[in-house]
Amino acid sequence: MVDTQRAEAQSQPLANPGDAPEAASMVWDAWGIPAGQQPLSAQIRGLLAQVFGVSGDPVARRDEGDVPLRESALTPAQRDGLVAVVGAADVSVDHHDRLLRAGGKSTPDLLRRRADGPQDAPDAVVFPADHEQVLAVLEYCATHEIAVVPFGGGTSVVGGVDPVRGRFATLIALDLRRLAWVRDVDPVSGTATLGAGLTGPQAEELLGAQGLSLGHFPQSFEFASIGGFAATRSSGQASAGYGRFDDMVQRLKVATPMGTLELGRAPASAAGPDLRELFVGSEGALGVITEVTLRVHPKPETVAYQAWSFPDFATGAAALRAVVQAGAAPTVLRLSDEAETGLNLARSGDIGGDAVTGCLAVTTFEGAEAHVVARSAEAHAVLTAAGGTALGAKPAQEWEHGRFKAPYMRDALLDAGVLCETLETATAWSNLAALKAKVTAALTDSLSAQGTPALVMCHISHTYPTGASLYFTVVAKQLSDPLAQWSIAKQAAGDAIMAAGGTITHHHAVGTDHRQWIPGEVGELGVRVLRAVKKELDPAGILNPGKLI
Amino acid sequence: MVDTQRAEAQSQPLANPGDAPEAASMVWDAWGIPAGQQPLSAQIRGLLAQVFGVSGDPVARRDEGDVPLRESALTPAQRDGLVAVVGAADVSVDHHDRLLRAGGKSTPDLLRRRADGPQDAPDAVVFPADHEQVLAVLEYCATHEIAVVPFGGGTSVVGGVDPVRGRFATLIALDLRRLAWVRDVDPVSGTATLGAGLTGPQAEELLGAQGLSLGHFPQSFEFASIGGFAATRSSGQASAGYGRFDDMVQRLKVATPMGTLELGRAPASAAGPDLRELFVGSEGALGVITEVTLRVHPKPETVAYQAWSFPDFATGAAALRAVVQAGAAPTVLRLSDEAETGLNLARSGDIGGDAVTGCLAVTTFEGAEAHVVARSAEAHAVLTAAGGTALGAKPAQEWEHGRFKAPYMRDALLDAGVLCETLETATAWSNLAALKAKVTAALTDSLSAQGTPALVMCHISHTYPTGASLYFTVVAKQLSDPLAQWSIAKQAAGDAIMAAGGTITHHHAVGTDHRQWIPGEVGELGVRVLRAVKKELDPAGILNPGKLI
Repeated sequence: MVDTQRAEAQSQPLANPGDAPEAASMVWDAWGIPAGQQPLSAQIRGLLAQVFGVSGDPVARRDEGDVPLRESALTPAQRDGLVAVVGAADVSVDHHDRLLRAGGKSTPDLLRRRADGPQDAPDAVVFPADHEQVLAVLEYCATHEIAVVPFGGGTSVVGGVDPVRGRFATLIALDLRRLAWVRDVDPVSGTATLGAGLTGPQAEELLGAQGLSLGHFPQSFEFASIGGFAATRSSGQASAGYGRFDDMVQRLKVATPMGTLELGRAPASAAGPDLRELFVGSEGALGVITEVTLRVHPKPETVAYQAWSFPDFATGAAALRAVVQAGAAPTVLRLSDEAETGLNLARSGDIGGDAVTGCLAVTTFEGAEAHVVARSAEAHAVLTAAGGTALGAKPAQEWEHGRFKAPYMRDALLDAGVLCETLETATAWSNLAALKAKVTAALTDSLSAQGTPALVMCHISHTYPTGASLYFTVVAKQLSDPLAQWSIAKQAAGDAIMAAGGTITHHHAVGTDHRQWIPGEVGELGVRVLRAVKKELDPAGILNPGKLI
Repeated sequence: MVDTQRAEAQSQPLANPGDAPEAASMVWDAWGIPAGQQPLSAQIRGLLAQVFGVSGDPVARRDEGDVPLRESALTPAQRDGLVAVVGAADVSVDHHDRLLRAGGKSTPDLLRRRADGPQDAPDAVVFPADHEQVLAVLEYCATHEIAVVPFGGGTSVVGGVDPVRGRFATLIALDLRRLAWVRDVDPVSGTATLGAGLTGPQAEELLGAQGLSLGHFPQSFEFASIGGFAATRSSGQASAGYGRFDDMVQRLKVATPMGTLELGRAPASAAGPDLRELFVGSEGALGVITEVTLRVHPKPETVAYQAWSFPDFATGAAALRAVVQAGAAPTVLRLSDEAETGLNLARSGDIGGDAVTGCLAVTTFEGAEAHVVARSAEAHAVLTAAGGTALGAKPAQEWEHGRFKAPYMRDALLDAGVLCETLETATAWSNLAALKAKVTAALTDSLSAQGTPALVMCHISHTYPTGASLYFTVVAKQLSDPLAQWSIAKQAAGDAIMAAGGTITHHHAVGTDHRQWIPGEVGELGVRVLRAVKKELDPAGILNPGKLI
């Protein structure tokens, strides 16, 4: 009986804010930290010269201190009001603090950051210590007409944290990094409660000290936060094994201008609509998620790697479908198309090097030894029968080694005069080939029409019994106005996704960039439902204006 | 490529209303059809005499035609208005039609049905042919102040279809049985669109003709409808393998007085809040679900059965937890406690006969041959290591054979002067033993205090990585006012569930009976959110008044 006692659950915080391992903050005008940045290799520069006719020489970036910033509109009275809630040390109008929260990391964000002229940014950055302070900040801002952008890791690639003021003269970034703790670890049930401000590495380190793991590894893992994962319906690279982030959410605590919501009492319930699903994916527009109780699992005893080659994308996609529908899914399950495989983009250590022929698929299997043995054997049989050739562990290990590096390469490409961006969608298996063809055509046609032929690559990185995601990477020569250039391509791609029956986003969320397509997702009546919820919880409309709805 | 073409999906209805196999309607005052009813065996009567001191002689039920019914309040003008929408043949004020929709099948419902005096019932029964007619009926009723109770199979055990008028003088039952079709079968993606009025057997028959199955087998399977499964977050006995009904929902079409909602574009999406989750579990209070696109799967090639014995419930629960957390879950996974095992209640063919010692667990494994072999071997190893003794296939096959029969036995018990009812909850694994003890104590104490000692049995029938459901069966001698007697016990059990951290319902839904505990589930602010959504979609408040919120 001992192992089913509630008493085993730990209800003390594992870490005070000071105890959490330090979170890495990204540089203001690019992805990641300086140590991660790398110049383009000679091989890639050769490819760029050959394909796009660009030299690949990087342009210099501006020094942070030299960047002119829109003057803070925070009034002394507003500052005093916020200081009364969180203390003077945690209300900042500092140039550096504001600039670091000037927006997310989409290619348009980064192009705007690199452009000359003054930068927009929040008027202040406020660092609440806990849920009660978040609640008090929201009440203050609702009363005093201050827009609030909840801020986690700042990794949004859809404009989700951009300082959009709407009708408000003043806007603050509400940085949740002090909510960095793990509580109520329950190893029997496999759950733990995490503060919204924890970054991916902080969460894994604190859970890892208890022998546990969340297993959520999106490309933004190193910088993004637990609250951000929940607010955007993030999906990690091990989603086939551990589920999407929304699948992991057992309980949410949400601060709104009208009070607190605590949602989720049981692993499953029939007690009416599931209100958690209103706040997961709410992108700070309906409330601020301050803590999340999540499904966790023991750190895997064993990890097995196996890469595969398929003759073409259609055969590979059918194989992935077969293995998922058989109930034999690996922990990681990915498939690159011919173009991505040909460039070795899945294995960033060797881009442009010797490629796998056809289409590369990566699988990993995690868990107890017996489970890994049984599952990998079952998957091996299904993938072989579906036309796959096993390539051994190495290409899969190379993929894992380089899996967080692609955004750094985008910065090097942007600096070298190359336009590079990604977008993603999902659809039913039966519609996958058609959707892929139409989005690829929309991207290549809209860029070619501007005189910049594009290279479009694609992979499947998230699979379900009924369908899969498609993740596109687009590369072309930059025009003199790359923002306008990409805007045309993005519009064409988004319209193509909706016309072809895909979702406008499988895991990047809505932000500002996908807002125009939301009526197509949920209909005008669905938008009215969302507005009714927002009006009930945020009647002043201070929460993340201009995002989502 | 052929097998990933959208073209394979069939977009023609497989069946017009007239083509669907006939749906069975339940008798008005008991569960099921007359052919299913059985007298108590001599063995059970002996047990009842010994334990409760009741003779077990059945009382006679009233003849349907003799039952006085509240006079229909439908005015001639209202009748004309509804006839203009659906036609004269599909607006009924017939005694039989009204009586069959007088409410659901909870023990209090059945006790009220058996009591002397006039019965309440809807003032009319309306049978719309399709979504557009549902929409038009709702618009008419909103304009003319008529309450609407959506009606599927009428199997609710929480008062979900009881004719609660609220502020309305007139109330109709909106019977969805004509929405009985399967469309857009997509065998590649494993999806199909089902009309809300299909019963479980109708759905399985129409899908089965295509080699497919839904795999949703709750105890109400024989009579309950697709729309009802969605509106109540039903969970089937094969939920460990195929998921809860809400897990299967890909897309919903919902009629509301303000128009139509079509929700769900992809297997997964990050395009904001998931509004499907507002309508799944909405119990007809926010809209009427008219069609559902569901995940389906090929009819299993193989089904393997294996029963287990565990020395006690705690050991068995820990074993179920181990197998689910290892990722080795069977398709069906159940565990009866000592009391239920002792009475052989899991094997209805042999109740009171030779029992399995300790606690009986039932597992089945479905799918392709290779999957069944791999998965059953993995589960076998985990369950053996956790202290289980394999009993072979027979007890599991007996469970499957009798799995829809328990509600018939309840009727025989009620007729024989025995009170019999069930209730259910779910919680985290670490809280399961404590919750079970507290609910059991609340039931036995509250009934003993009334002079009627109770037998309380329990099983786990739905499992998750983080926790499980608990399903209680209560048997005691009836007092002269069994409704009041059960009301006291139900109140005690519900309060105990909430105080002990369970959910008030894992799969029976809210209806009238659990409404008082909803603020405890979602908080007062959560209730306000639900009310805001209802006000937006149903400003007149005609939809299922008095249910859910």
